[in-house]
Amino acid sequence: MVEGRLSVEAYARACLDRVAAREPVVQAWSYIDPKRVIAQARALDDAGPSGPLHGLPVGVKDVLLTRDMPTQYNSPIYEGYAPAVDAACVQTLRAAGALIFGKTQTVEFASTGRPAPTRNPRNLAHTPGGSSSGSAAAVADRHIPLALGTQTGGSMIRPASFCGVWAIKPTWNIVSTEGAKRFSTTLDTIGWFGRSAQDLRLLYDVMDPEPATVADAFELCGARIAVCRTPVWASADPATRDALSAAEQRLGAAGAMVELLELPAPFDRLNALQDVVMRGEGRSAFLSDYRTDAARLHPSIRDHVENAQGYSRAMLCEAYDIAAQCRVAFDAMAGAFDAVVTPSTIGTAPEGLAQTGALTFNAMWTLLHTPCVNVPGFTGEGGMPVGLTVTGPRFADRKVMAAAAALGAEFIR
Amino acid sequence: MVEGRLSVEAYARACLDRVAAREPVVQAWSYIDPKRVIAQARALDDAGPSGPLHGLPVGVKDVLLTRDMPTQYNSPIYEGYAPAVDAACVQTLRAAGALIFGKTQTVEFASTGRPAPTRNPRNLAHTPGGSSSGSAAAVADRHIPLALGTQTGGSMIRPASFCGVWAIKPTWNIVSTEGAKRFSTTLDTIGWFGRSAQDLRLLYDVMDPEPATVADAFELCGARIAVCRTPVWASADPATRDALSAAEQRLGAAGAMVELLELPAPFDRLNALQDVVMRGEGRSAFLSDYRTDAARLHPSIRDHVENAQGYSRAMLCEAYDIAAQCRVAFDAMAGAFDAVVTPSTIGTAPEGLAQTGALTFNAMWTLLHTPCVNVPGFTGEGGMPVGLTVTGPRFADRKVMAAAAALGAEFIR
Repeated sequence: MVEGRLSVEAYARACLDRVAAREPVVQAWSYIDPKRVIAQARALDDAGPSGPLHGLPVGVKDVLLTRDMPTQYNSPIYEGYAPAVDAACVQTLRAAGALIFGKTQTVEFASTGRPAPTRNPRNLAHTPGGSSSGSAAAVADRHIPLALGTQTGGSMIRPASFCGVWAIKPTWNIVSTEGAKRFSTTLDTIGWFGRSAQDLRLLYDVMDPEPATVADAFELCGARIAVCRTPVWASADPATRDALSAAEQRLGAAGAMVELLELPAPFDRLNALQDVVMRGEGRSAFLSDYRTDAARLHPSIRDHVENAQGYSRAMLCEAYDIAAQCRVAFDAMAGAFDAVVTPSTIGTAPEGLAQTGALTFNAMWTLLHTPCVNVPGFTGEGGMPVGLTVTGPRFADRKVMAAAAALGAEFIR
Repeated sequence: MVEGRLSVEAYARACLDRVAAREPVVQAWSYIDPKRVIAQARALDDAGPSGPLHGLPVGVKDVLLTRDMPTQYNSPIYEGYAPAVDAACVQTLRAAGALIFGKTQTVEFASTGRPAPTRNPRNLAHTPGGSSSGSAAAVADRHIPLALGTQTGGSMIRPASFCGVWAIKPTWNIVSTEGAKRFSTTLDTIGWFGRSAQDLRLLYDVMDPEPATVADAFELCGARIAVCRTPVWASADPATRDALSAAEQRLGAAGAMVELLELPAPFDRLNALQDVVMRGEGRSAFLSDYRTDAARLHPSIRDHVENAQGYSRAMLCEAYDIAAQCRVAFDAMAGAFDAVVTPSTIGTAPEGLAQTGALTFNAMWTLLHTPCVNVPGFTGEGGMPVGLTVTGPRFADRKVMAAAAALGAEFIR
């Protein structure tokens, strides 16, 4: 992103100018200090190229610890909280030369609590989606080229679809969640938003200790592409239905072999089981805050700890075990294709900021641990964006990104 | 532990006296500040009974963040590191009124790096086991009644067996690992050491959001108890063989029905698969430190990131999937019994401090996510302790503790 002829400081100042112009209406940031940004930029200029992300401004969702900025989780309990520690993924970014630009707004604890104040840059009356609301909006609104987020239900892919940006939720646990607020150990996944598939890949190569291989290549002409409507297809709005139809047509026209992929039982149970895992593990994740200061936790988060849903441990085991069985089955099915295309969201971003949209088309993939890339390009009602997801077997992240890049070239017109 | 007639301060001072007398030879602590202990104790005395652990001194393994003490991971990189943040489990202890006594010695990052300087209190020439070396030794040597540890391979149960103390590794993820140094997301488990089954249970009831039920009761007479030699039985030393034989005899004499539980294929692969998961996930866990300061990481930890074992992602998936399948199978097998008894270690603690012993009899249970309690009581060569493990299906933690208490009454003579 940052060419030799452009100083880190000049690029950072351009980003800060954009933030200054747009932040009053978009409200993507929970913390940003222009002086600190400039100081970091100058230090990077002085040190010279230090890594593959040298000088690249990256926003950080405010559920990830940063040693030099507050981490407030959009929780009244953590107002002004600023321990001097970096989340592992932030530390990895710094080691690669990234400029940690600021903290982005989140739904409380990236969970089910109070929403971010962030607005959708494409239409300020609409939600940007959540919980990674600020990261999606800041990238969509061109404050910064890349921003970290997290997904436990649909918190990366949904806001990416609603804001019309690229995003990747990598295979579970490729990126350590150490230093991220815990919600569900089995589901929590670090991801990032970007303005192109290439930018996603640039950051991916820093985050994944496994090097690329020739198997990561993707050629659209002749590719075998599965269209997976999923067991929740009946929930899809016209915007998503139209996008998936258009995708099928265009991919076929580009020489790909497009086939429908039907998921057998028990895949139809995965959305419900994702909820069992998320809330069942949320009981443990939020216990320490509950015991310390229950009164200032959002009621929906107290509900996790108090098990308001009445999920038993037997149900949690069943959810673990069926999910594990479906992971094996999905890897085998998806492995027969070069890419799997599936909806990212029910449709376009709903109006209003109180709700961030549904995880209907994301929950299953989070539980399956598969890499997901939101590919923007389509629009629905009012010209609002809607994306499609490219996925594949676990650890096929680079192949999925390559496929997403090729598909995006057909989707974005 | 702390009766109304004994002040928190008086009890804390008694513990500090024991530390003063013994620490020069045992070296269980990486950080302890008597002034801070007394200040905490007085604050607890002033506040009055505040929770079920009121005034109870608890040691904390130095891979768990503590807001008021350094967290140094036995790593030269983190010397003096002291971010003001508590691990979730430490926060839960404080909310229950516990007195956070100090930080206990650990193998570097609770992983495969440099060993703790800690000695086995039962024979100073022997290892206490690792990686929770300091926590096990401090409890065994009566510095404190309880101490937190972690297990990724055998880091709780092995040192408990070697030092002759009680320990529980609860079902995976009942206790949030937020704020613990990450090694392997699928394996890392918070546990604790204590001097009785009752003390383990006291802390457990604070840590588990799920309340106790009548199904947690255990009656030895008439109980159906499985003895599981495991597929690695050939590795067992005479001390462990004798302990398991004695256990069979005594349990039979006490009226239990004792049966051998043979684990079918593919359980014989689980030890190897635990290594694939641990090192495969360790690549991601240690990436940020590797990128920041590889030179000061122990070579064996660099090996994780560099994948010195050459484990592929396909092998990691296979390990995940076979483990998941065995979890279902083991829960069903174990559910037919009231308790499962199995070795805790190959035998007694080896001589010397450079090696902390093998995870041979622990790796499988860590991967299976089952609750494990080390029950002390037997001895081997030189009178050194050797324990046996009581385990059961996932989430049967309280039943396992109840069984362990009853078995312990037969083992400890």
